[in-house]
Amino acid sequence: MTESAEIALRHPQGETTIVVGAGALAAAEERLAAWLDGRTVFLVTTPRVALLHGPRLGWVDRRCARRVTLEVPDGEAAKTLDEAGRLWREMLAAGGKRDSRVISLGGGSVCDLAGFAAGCFLRGVEVVHCPTTLLAQADAAIGGKTGVDLPAGKNTVGLFHHPAAVIADVEVLGSLPRRELAAGLVEVVKMALVLDPALFARLEDRLDALLAADPAELAPVVAAAAAAKAAVVERDPAEGDYRRVLNLGHTVGHALEAALGYGGGLLHGEAVAYGLLFALRLAVGRSLEPATAERVRALLARLGLAPLPSAAPSLAPPALLAFVQRDKKAREGGIDWVLPTALGGFEITREIRLDAVAAELERFLADPWRAIGAAA
Amino acid sequence: MTESAEIALRHPQGETTIVVGAGALAAAEERLAAWLDGRTVFLVTTPRVALLHGPRLGWVDRRCARRVTLEVPDGEAAKTLDEAGRLWREMLAAGGKRDSRVISLGGGSVCDLAGFAAGCFLRGVEVVHCPTTLLAQADAAIGGKTGVDLPAGKNTVGLFHHPAAVIADVEVLGSLPRRELAAGLVEVVKMALVLDPALFARLEDRLDALLAADPAELAPVVAAAAAAKAAVVERDPAEGDYRRVLNLGHTVGHALEAALGYGGGLLHGEAVAYGLLFALRLAVGRSLEPATAERVRALLARLGLAPLPSAAPSLAPPALLAFVQRDKKAREGGIDWVLPTALGGFEITREIRLDAVAAELERFLADPWRAIGAAA
Repeated sequence: MTESAEIALRHPQGETTIVVGAGALAAAEERLAAWLDGRTVFLVTTPRVALLHGPRLGWVDRRCARRVTLEVPDGEAAKTLDEAGRLWREMLAAGGKRDSRVISLGGGSVCDLAGFAAGCFLRGVEVVHCPTTLLAQADAAIGGKTGVDLPAGKNTVGLFHHPAAVIADVEVLGSLPRRELAAGLVEVVKMALVLDPALFARLEDRLDALLAADPAELAPVVAAAAAAKAAVVERDPAEGDYRRVLNLGHTVGHALEAALGYGGGLLHGEAVAYGLLFALRLAVGRSLEPATAERVRALLARLGLAPLPSAAPSLAPPALLAFVQRDKKAREGGIDWVLPTALGGFEITREIRLDAVAAELERFLADPWRAIGAAA
Repeated sequence: MTESAEIALRHPQGETTIVVGAGALAAAEERLAAWLDGRTVFLVTTPRVALLHGPRLGWVDRRCARRVTLEVPDGEAAKTLDEAGRLWREMLAAGGKRDSRVISLGGGSVCDLAGFAAGCFLRGVEVVHCPTTLLAQADAAIGGKTGVDLPAGKNTVGLFHHPAAVIADVEVLGSLPRRELAAGLVEVVKMALVLDPALFARLEDRLDALLAADPAELAPVVAAAAAAKAAVVERDPAEGDYRRVLNLGHTVGHALEAALGYGGGLLHGEAVAYGLLFALRLAVGRSLEPATAERVRALLARLGLAPLPSAAPSLAPPALLAFVQRDKKAREGGIDWVLPTALGGFEITREIRLDAVAAELERFLADPWRAIGAAA
């Protein structure tokens, strides 16, 4: 590894070290040697990822007492209670103990499932995440959120369980389909918009090189996004209030995913992009300058995301609104909207009336990419 | 309520208030009013407990926005992943949100399941435990341990999720069968032995009145046991090391339960009593005075516990030893035994060789109640 960034995230359970760089997985051997020494290690991954990137962790076998690989399905299909139950039974059958270790190697779904499995196995064993997608490297693997889905809602069962370390090797992103890379960049855009204007400008400047998976371009962007996220999590580890800034775009994003069925049409990042577009519309009705909203919309448009299947019956405005109201970020008192107020600024508000949301949702679904602030 | 004890347990997530007294459930209305105000409340209980003690919480309906009762089976049968999954689906379907509340009303199994369900629903909602068995009041409801069983092991899936409050109403203990009261007293004996010699002496003095469920006798004993447990948890909330003192008797106790099948012969407290008897045998081989071991054995004998079904094939020494080795308290390096060293003292040791355990186990199973230190 030629150069790497190292970010420390302090949280109530201890500290997470986040390493970002080209070749970070191969270079992690020394760092994790003591953590693995003498332990049983459960490597949670998918057959596809194991084939592509498993060799980068080949050194694990000579550092631990015993490695047990637990294969799970690709994508959101991994995030079920049944899969979690299967992992727990296999970990127990394989002699897993409280001081056993879990390593996840895969995308956000693998991190979420492996983190949940680690967090609840014998009331908690330590985990290191090795995220292999941009979305997981910049976002999902950081901050301790873990969980699985229920048929009626995404991430509805889970807990906060911080990893001991996150090893983000940007070299592995070269194997990602362009669509997944673009979807991952959505979360980076989201964080840059409200937390890091310099990163936002960099994204505008280098988007094409990033979409080409150039490791030299990806490394500083992933590191900046990871640092932004780590700072938010450190300030509010249990998502009391401030951390909810990261839910920007997720209220409608999750509703879209639930309405279309997980894995049924949109990638998570794509759904968040549409949620972000919707949030921009609500925000210009408050304090966001239309020109800023337009900059964000234009940047998202350059990602060339899959179109929203607006004709789907589950995306009829009343049906989608019901999913929005059921999202777990809703509280008893109503829906908390995270909205940008400017580049580098945001608010969390419960002041938007449901009929205003419904009306905007109808206009939005008719033409999601329409210029913001323009007449219908 | 005429008089009650109030114990504060500070932990990393905040503070738990433990209230112990006769009539504590009816008296909790003012205390919990703000916690319930405007919330959806999920009351997790069993049909039997609801019938017996539900009316003591009748005031909940006028303090919350909406109560949803979730009934679960009695006893260990509640502690399955399937039951947890059902609760989560029902909570979601009923519109549960992050600021919804969970109240458990029942024994240790109901506390464990409800705490686990609360801890993982939307990554954690707050819970108040209203334990209705002596075991739950003195032990299980305190300290944040939650979880369910897998077929291959008890409490193998769960997390630490501290309750906001524990309301222990000793009046409800009058409805307990004598057998359950006696089993609950085993955990009290366990804590008194290593943590509170004055409580141990009180147990020796008042055991008959306690077994008659006299509330005036039970209140100070439950309060003392709860205070002892709270002090241990406060010192070591995540069970790093010191808290493992509470596992005294549980290594063999859990193995017996697993070997006999949960709910298949012994109550948890009864299994712990046999585990404690076994620990006494190992302890006199180290630093415990035989006379002290005999005092403990004599006190346990007065409880009139169900006999150990020694003839069960799963209790053949090699079979039971395999269960001991699989217990979750085992670590990669061997089995950590918690052993009393004197009244008010204990050690945690990994120095006992497996062949010595096997030999002692064989002698123990032949005659569990035999005087300790006597020749075979």
